[in-house]
Amino acid sequence: MGFVTIRDVARQAGVSITAVSQILHGKGRFSQETRDLVQRTVDELGYIPDSRAQAIRSSRSKTVGLLVPDIRNPFFADLVCSVEEMLHEKGYSTLIGTSAEDVNRQDAFINTLLGYRIDGAIVVPQGVQSPGIDMLVDQDLPLVFVDRRVQGVDSVPFVVSDPYTGLQEALDTLHQLGHRRIGYVAHPSLGSFSVNERETAFREIAAGLFDQEPTIVACDNTFASRKQALVELLAADVTAIVFAYSPDAIALIGLLHDRSIDIGTDVSVVSFDDIDAFKLMTPQIAIISQQVGDMGRQGVEMLLARIDAKRKRRAENRRIPTVFVQRGSVCVAPVG
Amino acid sequence: MGFVTIRDVARQAGVSITAVSQILHGKGRFSQETRDLVQRTVDELGYIPDSRAQAIRSSRSKTVGLLVPDIRNPFFADLVCSVEEMLHEKGYSTLIGTSAEDVNRQDAFINTLLGYRIDGAIVVPQGVQSPGIDMLVDQDLPLVFVDRRVQGVDSVPFVVSDPYTGLQEALDTLHQLGHRRIGYVAHPSLGSFSVNERETAFREIAAGLFDQEPTIVACDNTFASRKQALVELLAADVTAIVFAYSPDAIALIGLLHDRSIDIGTDVSVVSFDDIDAFKLMTPQIAIISQQVGDMGRQGVEMLLARIDAKRKRRAENRRIPTVFVQRGSVCVAPVG
Repeated sequence: MGFVTIRDVARQAGVSITAVSQILHGKGRFSQETRDLVQRTVDELGYIPDSRAQAIRSSRSKTVGLLVPDIRNPFFADLVCSVEEMLHEKGYSTLIGTSAEDVNRQDAFINTLLGYRIDGAIVVPQGVQSPGIDMLVDQDLPLVFVDRRVQGVDSVPFVVSDPYTGLQEALDTLHQLGHRRIGYVAHPSLGSFSVNERETAFREIAAGLFDQEPTIVACDNTFASRKQALVELLAADVTAIVFAYSPDAIALIGLLHDRSIDIGTDVSVVSFDDIDAFKLMTPQIAIISQQVGDMGRQGVEMLLARIDAKRKRRAENRRIPTVFVQRGSVCVAPVG
Repeated sequence: MGFVTIRDVARQAGVSITAVSQILHGKGRFSQETRDLVQRTVDELGYIPDSRAQAIRSSRSKTVGLLVPDIRNPFFADLVCSVEEMLHEKGYSTLIGTSAEDVNRQDAFINTLLGYRIDGAIVVPQGVQSPGIDMLVDQDLPLVFVDRRVQGVDSVPFVVSDPYTGLQEALDTLHQLGHRRIGYVAHPSLGSFSVNERETAFREIAAGLFDQEPTIVACDNTFASRKQALVELLAADVTAIVFAYSPDAIALIGLLHDRSIDIGTDVSVVSFDDIDAFKLMTPQIAIISQQVGDMGRQGVEMLLARIDAKRKRRAENRRIPTVFVQRGSVCVAPVG
């Protein structure tokens, strides 16, 4: 089925188009039964009132929606920038929204977006299925997931990074430098498919390299959880720490400074994400780069192909290899 | 059926397009019969008048447009975040766009925005008058400028920071620490009213404190201009540098590192903008904080007051005092 129109609602409910329109606008005199019927039909069919849906399909608006979790995270700021720049080159405007890593805010923005005429959307989704994501998928609107995917939603093509390549290089390097007790900081509460996949990759690769079980701790966005994570890592006497989520790395680097534990001497540090702050620190922090610019551009390429395609064939998913970048924060393991 | 156009309505009703347009706008002299016929046809066909202005004015969309120059600049990322958070609290969605510090891109986004139903807009404008800004002002849409204003556009209320308070504190401190040869890095090519006002403030305050004329150099976003700026500052043998624009500070701090000139020992550094990167550096960089969260929230407050006001009285402009935050990058002037 294509896009749901007011005509579909009227037919299904067995009332006139005018009746549907009036009821949705709170006008006209109709029985409560009829009102309920129309509202139920609207909900069932997923009709977007205000003929917004129609408008979306009617003609090219040369506008694309872009949803990211948090632009204060420089990784997403870079992603937005590369997406916007390429869309601008291709003659498109970009309407950006953020979810603040919150499913309800994500869904609120999707709702807003669907009320407008857009040609397609690029979404960094919260990792869980939600009414908003379901609605977006149901619209038959050209759609691409970037950086993350949604478990259980397989109809939307995605471009994500492949954590295995960069993690393999990073852990090989740490192993060669004599590290044997490795710590890993996960961030499961994000509900990010990609961040969680890094943990799986880390466990697999570490199991092949190290005799000793790595120490895996979990952070959320609270200061308390980060402090607790550090306490556990220090208790396990790790000589190297790998961070899945760069805001955790920045917070824990601060805490290490406070305790006068020298990075690049006492402990080696590697974090995911190629953000400027890591280059500005002393020593600079080694990274597993997701090549975010490339990811953004490939997402746009996939989206524009879908917008231009006469028939919406499902696009190929893409995985962009991560790359390890060695820097001063990685050193020979301290003796003992 | 495709999208219903005004042409379809006219054909169906057997009247001219102009007649439909005039009737829908409540203009022209037509019989009640013709008016009713057109209105009925509009309802039957589900025609949505394509008049953007009308749509904008007609009903609350609970959506606000937000235009910022560059979200990779953490100052603007923080601004976006505070604006979006407060709007979300108040039940509004935010459509964000960026101008990439380019008037044409700014105007393209304004054009897109005006094609949608929004209740108002918060804009960090390029500092020059432009067709896009003129169009936005002409819409009679609730509008607030934040962080910057546009020379010559006085009908739009603004909330900006006051550079005098923070600069006075910073220069007093440098003076007390024995600095006599002060450098200042301007960035005139931005066309930012606020960034330019800092230079005026710096000149005035410095003239009152220092006997020696300060060395004022200008950067743009190119590496070459920044390198040249550093060469000029070093030739003038300055002992302290004040940066108007934080991306210049970050670039020149890197160049100082490369030349093994120690910040907080050989040279003192102060920059505008309270961004995280300055706290992550060693030593931490002293700042003149614009209190961006406060600025964002006050901008939202002003906008919502305008949206809710029955009569659009011109709001009071607001200036938020800047604050100097002393950190390790500021030290006693080296002897000699």
